[in-house]
Amino acid sequence: MPVNLPPPNPVELYPIDGIKLGVAEAGIRKLHRKDLTVILFDEGVSVAGVFTQNRFCAAPVQVCREHLASAGPVRALLINTGNANAGTGAEGLARARQSCTAVATALGVAPSQVLPFSTGVIMEPLPIDRIEAGLPAALADLRPDNWLRAAQAIMTTDTVAKACGVQIMLGGKRVSVTGISKGAGMIRPNMATMLGFLATDACISPGLMQTLARELAEGSFNRVTVDGDTSTNDSLVVVATNKAGHAPIDSLDSADGRALKSAMLEVSRRLAQAIVRDGEGATKFIAVQVEGGRTTDECRRVAYAIAHSPLVKTAFFASDPNLGRILAAVGYAGIDDLDQTTIDLYLDDVLVAVRGGRNPAYREEDGQRVMKQSEITVRVVLGRGKAQDTVWTCDLSHDYVTINADYRS
Amino acid sequence: MPVNLPPPNPVELYPIDGIKLGVAEAGIRKLHRKDLTVILFDEGVSVAGVFTQNRFCAAPVQVCREHLASAGPVRALLINTGNANAGTGAEGLARARQSCTAVATALGVAPSQVLPFSTGVIMEPLPIDRIEAGLPAALADLRPDNWLRAAQAIMTTDTVAKACGVQIMLGGKRVSVTGISKGAGMIRPNMATMLGFLATDACISPGLMQTLARELAEGSFNRVTVDGDTSTNDSLVVVATNKAGHAPIDSLDSADGRALKSAMLEVSRRLAQAIVRDGEGATKFIAVQVEGGRTTDECRRVAYAIAHSPLVKTAFFASDPNLGRILAAVGYAGIDDLDQTTIDLYLDDVLVAVRGGRNPAYREEDGQRVMKQSEITVRVVLGRGKAQDTVWTCDLSHDYVTINADYRS
Repeated sequence: MPVNLPPPNPVELYPIDGIKLGVAEAGIRKLHRKDLTVILFDEGVSVAGVFTQNRFCAAPVQVCREHLASAGPVRALLINTGNANAGTGAEGLARARQSCTAVATALGVAPSQVLPFSTGVIMEPLPIDRIEAGLPAALADLRPDNWLRAAQAIMTTDTVAKACGVQIMLGGKRVSVTGISKGAGMIRPNMATMLGFLATDACISPGLMQTLARELAEGSFNRVTVDGDTSTNDSLVVVATNKAGHAPIDSLDSADGRALKSAMLEVSRRLAQAIVRDGEGATKFIAVQVEGGRTTDECRRVAYAIAHSPLVKTAFFASDPNLGRILAAVGYAGIDDLDQTTIDLYLDDVLVAVRGGRNPAYREEDGQRVMKQSEITVRVVLGRGKAQDTVWTCDLSHDYVTINADYRS
Repeated sequence: MPVNLPPPNPVELYPIDGIKLGVAEAGIRKLHRKDLTVILFDEGVSVAGVFTQNRFCAAPVQVCREHLASAGPVRALLINTGNANAGTGAEGLARARQSCTAVATALGVAPSQVLPFSTGVIMEPLPIDRIEAGLPAALADLRPDNWLRAAQAIMTTDTVAKACGVQIMLGGKRVSVTGISKGAGMIRPNMATMLGFLATDACISPGLMQTLARELAEGSFNRVTVDGDTSTNDSLVVVATNKAGHAPIDSLDSADGRALKSAMLEVSRRLAQAIVRDGEGATKFIAVQVEGGRTTDECRRVAYAIAHSPLVKTAFFASDPNLGRILAAVGYAGIDDLDQTTIDLYLDDVLVAVRGGRNPAYREEDGQRVMKQSEITVRVVLGRGKAQDTVWTCDLSHDYVTINADYRS
């Protein structure tokens, strides 16, 4: 059961002028489930992407990087579930390229104008024949209002589709932002998450797109973790169709630039947090907020040490305020000159530890009360500076083990 | 059920001339279990220790460091379970010192000649009154042949006591090495493990002791992990009583020095591996061997990335050869210039992946056969140098979650 994560609200899934989506059942791994998605862009659309830093990156990630670096504008995305096409060597690369060629031929564009994405089991050959056979059905399904079906078609161990959107006004014009994402395990994105697609009809200078994509990833997908495993396939794609009719944004620091970035960040963050709320086996959603650090980087390291600790995560699962485990994680986060006597720990509004020791006024029942909630904020005050950072995670439950022990069966 | 870990063999637990051990039931956390241990040394005994690198180190670790740095030789160790005396601030330090004073007063030595060790729940006040009340019984129990009882008395979530020994001949004299350890969770030692005590009656120049302790930790306790959580209380103490009567060892590179170090490393490694075999919820013992790296450090980083991956560990629990998860962990281990096309992966003798892709001759049933074993070697060949390193770990099972969700209840 995902944590406070309702299904997508169809009203929020604004069609983006210039984008159509189509899905199909290609039988890539299992029959009778949507597993193939095509997203088609009009001419004049700007596309940027950020990808996993995992050095064992999947074949489609390698092809995406190549194609984004080439001259021709991107016209289509092809996404399959059921197979990650990672750990597949030269043959995997060839098949990823072949899938782009199939889409390009059908659309009358160059193969380098297609970006491929795969998610599923690692180290099994991509069934390119099934992808090619399923493609006509996905193309026949192309429609602007297919965001929810696309969100469903990219799910793997997800239990809920992840999609949301917002609208803002820019220069008197209504601008829409809509995004979808997927992911529930192997989640510790490093540049992006398993798969995230974010689109707007806003008008943005193409030169800003890559910076925008990176900043959105940094503020959202790069701040969540389920199990600490950085995937081979993490990809976030940000698309602007430039159709909304307002004056183009030529700086992200302009008023319009800030307004758009803020709207897109809201969507990114909801999509990223949705992945944690639907984290494999999750029963609780936990924000780990670290303040008073010397640098943002050290705050983030402390936050991730807490968010990755199996002992902390099982204590949250059990609603057991065994909070010394949090202090232990702070201690091994890798800050060499950390002084434990300046550190305070809060659980929501409950002050648990003061200057590295138990708060004399802390009562176990207060900790217990917060631990029983489904949404919890852990706040660590390092007392050595003014930087801060936040990471979102979930607990570690029996179901995480069950899901991952049975994933392929 | 621990993995292929029988109870200690009493015949191997050689008394060490110059050392007596005594245990008592002090009721520190629960009644009717041995939870207090005193280890007494004759004069002339050399003691060295290595301690956790966790910056939230426990009060007893801080006191151990102070006392080892002071002039007087160590005469006694005091070990309690049931309470870690970590995250306890200034009051915790005062209580750790008070426990040393109690032992020192009873023995007629200085408080700085006593080293305190605590293990158990973090961030609860050390019940110093119960320790003081239990001390006379532990002192009355002091005997040279009490190694097994001491190994039992330092257990927390351990299901089996951990103790072993070897004997070698040095200069025509029989030399004994005996050690005990404890630990099953919060295990990712960084300098040492939760608690390890290793003693020999060999004669060694006192100036060599600290180097010896560090090298033994590096080759054993610093190569194991259960859950990646570096404890606040990790301590390894190495003791030489200098009673065996052979010519003193004045270099660890002499023939006798190498022979002794090898014997002590064997005992350390068995004790460290015993912690993994008894790892919380463990059903399998896994050696992760990384070869062909440029440096030992990068091999170790890759080995730990694999050994810490919850996805890899749950796949081992399920005997599911979902081995792409191992490649993914190699990819995020932090080697920036890693080339996936030079990497081979073996499971025992089965070649699973070649040059970053699935070995065409690999058959799933071969992987399955190895995954079902209780002892498995994962071998990764990086293909970029000649360095290698090995780390030992266990799988991640439902029982890990159960144990840590219920630890304090």
